[in-house]
Amino acid sequence: MAATGAPPLVLRTAGRLRGPSLRRFPSVIDTRRATATVLEISPPSPAAAGFDLETYMAARGRRVEEALEAAVPLLPPAKIHSAMRYSLLAGGKRVRPILTLAASELVGGGEAAVMPFACAVEMIHTMSLVHDDLPCVDDGHHRRGRPANHRVFGDAAAVLAGDALIFLAFEHIAARTAGDVPPERILRAVAELAAAAGSGGMIAGQIVDLDSERKEVGREVLEYIHVQKTARLIEAAAVAGAIVGGGNDGEVERIKRYARCVGLLFQVVDDVLDATRTAEELGKTAGRDLTVGKATYPKLLGMAGSREFACQLVKRSEEELAGFDAERAAPLYHLARFVACREH
Amino acid sequence: MAATGAPPLVLRTAGRLRGPSLRRFPSVIDTRRATATVLEISPPSPAAAGFDLETYMAARGRRVEEALEAAVPLLPPAKIHSAMRYSLLAGGKRVRPILTLAASELVGGGEAAVMPFACAVEMIHTMSLVHDDLPCVDDGHHRRGRPANHRVFGDAAAVLAGDALIFLAFEHIAARTAGDVPPERILRAVAELAAAAGSGGMIAGQIVDLDSERKEVGREVLEYIHVQKTARLIEAAAVAGAIVGGGNDGEVERIKRYARCVGLLFQVVDDVLDATRTAEELGKTAGRDLTVGKATYPKLLGMAGSREFACQLVKRSEEELAGFDAERAAPLYHLARFVACREH
Repeated sequence: MAATGAPPLVLRTAGRLRGPSLRRFPSVIDTRRATATVLEISPPSPAAAGFDLETYMAARGRRVEEALEAAVPLLPPAKIHSAMRYSLLAGGKRVRPILTLAASELVGGGEAAVMPFACAVEMIHTMSLVHDDLPCVDDGHHRRGRPANHRVFGDAAAVLAGDALIFLAFEHIAARTAGDVPPERILRAVAELAAAAGSGGMIAGQIVDLDSERKEVGREVLEYIHVQKTARLIEAAAVAGAIVGGGNDGEVERIKRYARCVGLLFQVVDDVLDATRTAEELGKTAGRDLTVGKATYPKLLGMAGSREFACQLVKRSEEELAGFDAERAAPLYHLARFVACREH
Repeated sequence: MAATGAPPLVLRTAGRLRGPSLRRFPSVIDTRRATATVLEISPPSPAAAGFDLETYMAARGRRVEEALEAAVPLLPPAKIHSAMRYSLLAGGKRVRPILTLAASELVGGGEAAVMPFACAVEMIHTMSLVHDDLPCVDDGHHRRGRPANHRVFGDAAAVLAGDALIFLAFEHIAARTAGDVPPERILRAVAELAAAAGSGGMIAGQIVDLDSERKEVGREVLEYIHVQKTARLIEAAAVAGAIVGGGNDGEVERIKRYARCVGLLFQVVDDVLDATRTAEELGKTAGRDLTVGKATYPKLLGMAGSREFACQLVKRSEEELAGFDAERAAPLYHLARFVACREH
């Protein structure tokens, strides 16, 4: 394994780094230029260079938090709503809902109209974590720095809370999407979101992932797992934003391809961080994915190969944005770099 | 308990019984007229008397089966789709989707337009059974005469198959509802269905039910559990049909109240059958609900009181149908009687 000894970075950005958003992630923006595994993302284009991602994400993240908080009031029965709130309001970067808002903005959509979709995407993402952590699935004990849902509320409540989050996602979309969004757009986005999350998407990735534990899998299966398990929902987050925001077919298609790259990037970076971080923290054992024999990019491509792949994904995501006005595309442009350079 | 020694019937229908639908359920149409616990439902009204429920249900049930079969093709990954199909296509009376079709018909809607909703309701109902049977929830071993889903596919796959059925339900509605149904109607019905199934509906009932095991609960809590756990989804099945079929607000409201009665009736009959059947079959021990200390109607009202209540519910359901043309209302009229007189 290439994990041990590799620097704890995925990618670095060449050129001037603007705003504290990137400076806050020092370990992935490697300041040691020496190693051969450092790959450079091209400097931001002039139009995007003045954009401050941290301010952008903080403002939208705050509104997403407010909307999520309001979406799950602590009504009776208290237990189910507490369990839902526990995981849904546990923080996190809210990258998916922010992608939804940013994609809508890019095609000229308003934020209020698309917020129910942004919330729905986060509900579905959260639900997948709650069910993934169940003892009978992936047996996760901690999530977002807190005990996993089932360890606080019990397995039965965790099953039901996950289910309830899915129903809430669709109820929220159907009941709350602002009246001025044409309902056929809402239905089209519902179909995209449900397909991306279901047995032909996220859940397909989860089941193949579970089945591939302790097996040798090739790059094709690995890519399938990651595209399905992670990228599809991220893609749907952006696509729903683009559809509800009123994008034309060409715009929706480009945003979809952009988001597919970002989704895969998410997983490559996850894999690299998991291998690196754990190797560093524990000194001797590799990350959990490696110990349970799960397919990962570092295992298959090595650390250098994984970084190279991540670099390509950033580039491809930027190519998809090239057809849009550069200033309006700046949030998505920087979001891809944020995903590449994040450290957790 | 009043269970032992009580005749194995819930209700009997006075007057001429038409069609083999009722004759096929001999044990609930008690032929021994002697006991004081036999309660009579009034004879069918003249307009409804010529209606043959069995033919009606067989025809619609067949088309529901075909639609469900087509909704979950055996695509890869085979495991998740096999698990979904195993439970979804395991038979059953399909009372919920037939209610959806019948409610739509009553207000003049076409069958094709509402079929995706009928399928979605059955997917959600099936999913609730799959998750309910999980060892960490209610630990059911058998369902519809076959081993429970998790006993065939494993717990993790059963969790994921249940999740996937929810996503499929909403994808199916959004992608398949016929183009001539106004999309705002579809959204309204989606909101009803999702709310009925979620943490303010079916799942609320499930969590309170789990929490009330081995506790003494009063009639209010019992009614809450049953309204939420069983009646809400049955209500939503009918309401979705009425909305998509184009019913006006008054019609939707009356069909909703009708279905609430039928939903409760479903549960009362379930409870009575569970207590009676098990007492008969095992000779000494009461039904499973009683052994795990769950609240049931026979426990709370006694067998005679439960039958009396069921009788009232049939009557109330019929009152809600009185405002409709009697001939068009015949299917819903007889469906309520079918639910009252079923034996499994």
